[in-house]
Amino acid sequence: MSRRTPTGAAVLQSTVTEAITEAVLDELSEQGYARLSMEAVAKRAGVGKSALYRRWASKQEMAIAVIAEFSGEQVRVPDTGSLRGDLRASLDTVTEWLTHPRFSRIMPDLVAEMARNPELGKVVEVMAGAPKRERTVVMLRRAIERGELPPDLDVEIALDLIAAPVYWRVIVRAVEAEPGYLDKLTDLLLRALSSES
Amino acid sequence: MSRRTPTGAAVLQSTVTEAITEAVLDELSEQGYARLSMEAVAKRAGVGKSALYRRWASKQEMAIAVIAEFSGEQVRVPDTGSLRGDLRASLDTVTEWLTHPRFSRIMPDLVAEMARNPELGKVVEVMAGAPKRERTVVMLRRAIERGELPPDLDVEIALDLIAAPVYWRVIVRAVEAEPGYLDKLTDLLLRALSSES
Repeated sequence: MSRRTPTGAAVLQSTVTEAITEAVLDELSEQGYARLSMEAVAKRAGVGKSALYRRWASKQEMAIAVIAEFSGEQVRVPDTGSLRGDLRASLDTVTEWLTHPRFSRIMPDLVAEMARNPELGKVVEVMAGAPKRERTVVMLRRAIERGELPPDLDVEIALDLIAAPVYWRVIVRAVEAEPGYLDKLTDLLLRALSSES
Repeated sequence: MSRRTPTGAAVLQSTVTEAITEAVLDELSEQGYARLSMEAVAKRAGVGKSALYRRWASKQEMAIAVIAEFSGEQVRVPDTGSLRGDLRASLDTVTEWLTHPRFSRIMPDLVAEMARNPELGKVVEVMAGAPKRERTVVMLRRAIERGELPPDLDVEIALDLIAAPVYWRVIVRAVEAEPGYLDKLTDLLLRALSSES
């Protein structure tokens, strides 16, 4: 099959989508989810509200779609050849993600909003949850195949342990996670996850 | 010195303080810090605004004072005689604290607000930070004295590791931390913190 050059209309559509996406992320980062409105997004993107409603039925749908796409871009799965290397690189990725100028505001805002508004559970699951976890499982499975982790590793708790300390430090405590800290954390995680028995 | 019976005026004062404290916590939990106002607190507590301004100069001062007192009450330091027992009991305390109906809303709201409003850094440090950490250090020092932890333990990172996974699971992912999970987490933390070399 030959690649088709996008038509003028398709290019225009994707430019509009990009403008809307940027506007949603800016509004979420500056105003937070509670104050996010279709009106403000349309105004900021320089489009009519109908352009938004053609794409999504509600503010919640819009937020979930935009965040899912944005979060997907942030996920990389390291494959350095060793568990230590992969863990260290994962901690770098998590740190980068949680100190991203937009993400570092959007994520805790949604976590807080979720506590007041349970229907939002899905949004955070999209950000913190499924896609990142699935890809990190691949990394852990490779370590099991190499004999670096026990075959009966509790993957669920391992995933929590990899993400949690950096979130706690960078977002909740608002303290820097310097490279030396991440090195030590890698050692502790290696010890925690490797079975000694 | 003999204990003096509080005077009628002192009793009244402490009743007023209690009503205000409850009102601040209710407003923080329901409305969040951004929408917290001296007006709403005074109305809810059934007092005049002057009663608030006699105690605190600003909304921020009021919030910090009330949260510090409330958080202090939640801190208990286990002393079960073993590191395993102390860690397990600490995880129970953290879980209880993070699933507390009020606290589970107030804490993530302040974390989010802090990202938008850096002057709030202090509030979260009061909740998540100094008092709890100081008391947990006592627990870790006891384990070092018993020879259960290496004398050169990195206390800073150990404190992060104890609090982080439960926060991540219960608050960010909004998943339950059932007793079996906390048991496994205790094993992993023991392995992570104990030096094997």
